[in-house]
Amino acid sequence: MSILLAVSGWDPAPWRRRLTSLLPSHKMATLDELFDRPSVRYALSWRHPPGALADLPNLQAIFSLGAGVDHLFADPALPDRPIVRVVDPDLTERMSEWVVMHALAHLRQLRRYERQQRERIWADDDDQPKAAEVQVGVLGLGVLGTDAALKLGALGFKVAGWSASEKSLPGVACFHGSGGLKRLLSMTDMLVVLLPLTDATRGLIDASLLSQLRRGGRLGGPILINAGRGGLQVEADILAALDSGRLKGASLDVFEREPLPTASRLWTHPAVYVSPHNAAVSTPEAVAAFVARQIEAHERGEPLTNLVDRRRGY
Amino acid sequence: MSILLAVSGWDPAPWRRRLTSLLPSHKMATLDELFDRPSVRYALSWRHPPGALADLPNLQAIFSLGAGVDHLFADPALPDRPIVRVVDPDLTERMSEWVVMHALAHLRQLRRYERQQRERIWADDDDQPKAAEVQVGVLGLGVLGTDAALKLGALGFKVAGWSASEKSLPGVACFHGSGGLKRLLSMTDMLVVLLPLTDATRGLIDASLLSQLRRGGRLGGPILINAGRGGLQVEADILAALDSGRLKGASLDVFEREPLPTASRLWTHPAVYVSPHNAAVSTPEAVAAFVARQIEAHERGEPLTNLVDRRRGY
Repeated sequence: MSILLAVSGWDPAPWRRRLTSLLPSHKMATLDELFDRPSVRYALSWRHPPGALADLPNLQAIFSLGAGVDHLFADPALPDRPIVRVVDPDLTERMSEWVVMHALAHLRQLRRYERQQRERIWADDDDQPKAAEVQVGVLGLGVLGTDAALKLGALGFKVAGWSASEKSLPGVACFHGSGGLKRLLSMTDMLVVLLPLTDATRGLIDASLLSQLRRGGRLGGPILINAGRGGLQVEADILAALDSGRLKGASLDVFEREPLPTASRLWTHPAVYVSPHNAAVSTPEAVAAFVARQIEAHERGEPLTNLVDRRRGY
Repeated sequence: MSILLAVSGWDPAPWRRRLTSLLPSHKMATLDELFDRPSVRYALSWRHPPGALADLPNLQAIFSLGAGVDHLFADPALPDRPIVRVVDPDLTERMSEWVVMHALAHLRQLRRYERQQRERIWADDDDQPKAAEVQVGVLGLGVLGTDAALKLGALGFKVAGWSASEKSLPGVACFHGSGGLKRLLSMTDMLVVLLPLTDATRGLIDASLLSQLRRGGRLGGPILINAGRGGLQVEADILAALDSGRLKGASLDVFEREPLPTASRLWTHPAVYVSPHNAAVSTPEAVAAFVARQIEAHERGEPLTNLVDRRRGY
């Protein structure tokens, strides 16, 4: 009985080491070695090559080793087996660190003061808005969106949130559905995007959505913070909105193509923060521990948790 | 009966407008105009010229219009009258925004990723520490230090604090006295300074103190964040510690001399954030409302609150 580590773009070695020490009675295999396909009971995937999980007759479950599962659905030959989404508290905490840092950097004009520092200019702003004067709208109220919303609230921001299905959070005005999205956007000064990438959300952050954000707030224009998925955004529309002044600034950790192509104007736009899809990394330690616990429970006959709804796509 | 606005370096006009609308039955005077000295009952000071408050025989109280009161004690002719310290919730919230932003910027290496962005480099760190692996030590647990400590804790940092007298805060390991300071420093990866400037704290952040900070933490060296008072720090010692690698980075909002002299190496040191003493501004709106409430209460015969202890100096 064995576990298949089906990753691309990542080094499987630290995962293998960690999982071997947690599950010593299981064999591990990687895609580049010969292994007995019928013996594979669990597949652990990060962007596996399409077809790599086919022809595994005894496969019990597929685990996604990162926060999203959209990479799995890119494989038309994905076997029809339960998919387990990783919920890593470390990843959630790191994501909120990144989101809160960027929300504060835009609120407090950190870039402006860094520029002044380079020019040795000692100058202050007459009219510094505070967090309580800024309405944040969080798109996506899953584990990540919920944690970010609560921490932004703890720092003093006014926080509202939107999710596809109805949610309720203490201290956060919650909207849902397409009517709710319009209402949220019309009140939002700072849009934080932590949605899953599905057929319903692909390309959602486009000119139409950006044009619905509130005008005339205390920040001098709306701010976009996307740490969800690059496929959620239309980068040409974001750049056009920044150029026209309709959007005041952006922090982007994810992009339509990654690595972000050298030619992209996002790299050099003065109002844009670019980070290399590292807002919240999965560490082999935390994720492997989660996966090992689930596999052990399943082997004892207990049900898998954090299962993906294939119809919704997350 | 009148109120004297005794400020230097600030425009008194917005203060005067706001206070006149809040206290319409009181006359206002500024230092540059002729006024009847015996009629002055309240002096509102920000860095008043030494001697400016002498010879006010009916002075009832002195209000400091900013967060500190050390500027008052710089006047050897300061009258022996009650001194009221401003407690402005807006100022507290802004201070915590600034402190948390800089704590996160050092934790998440924001400068490094901004540099990479300028060079269009897509590269990540193998070993990103998270807040829960970093011990923050907050020096000063007054209104500002307490709020910052609790918000840093909400973001996931391990937080300890130190104050001259014994304090207790939920979720924050509290130390006091000189033995407590040594213990706090020896465990601290990130030192946040929100102390008042007194004879006991002047020059406290020197080579000796910096040498006591923990070596070998997850940040690769200790970080200094000072938004208290410039007089707390010895800038030559900070620069030497940065140059030697004993200190990994710093965020400074306050300086020995302000504006920070153009020749200071702090402006250009790559590991230093300089901001122009604007971590937490007092707005005339919030402070004037606080002062007006206190004056009205005093005129009704009620006691003044938030009084300064002249012996402690804060």
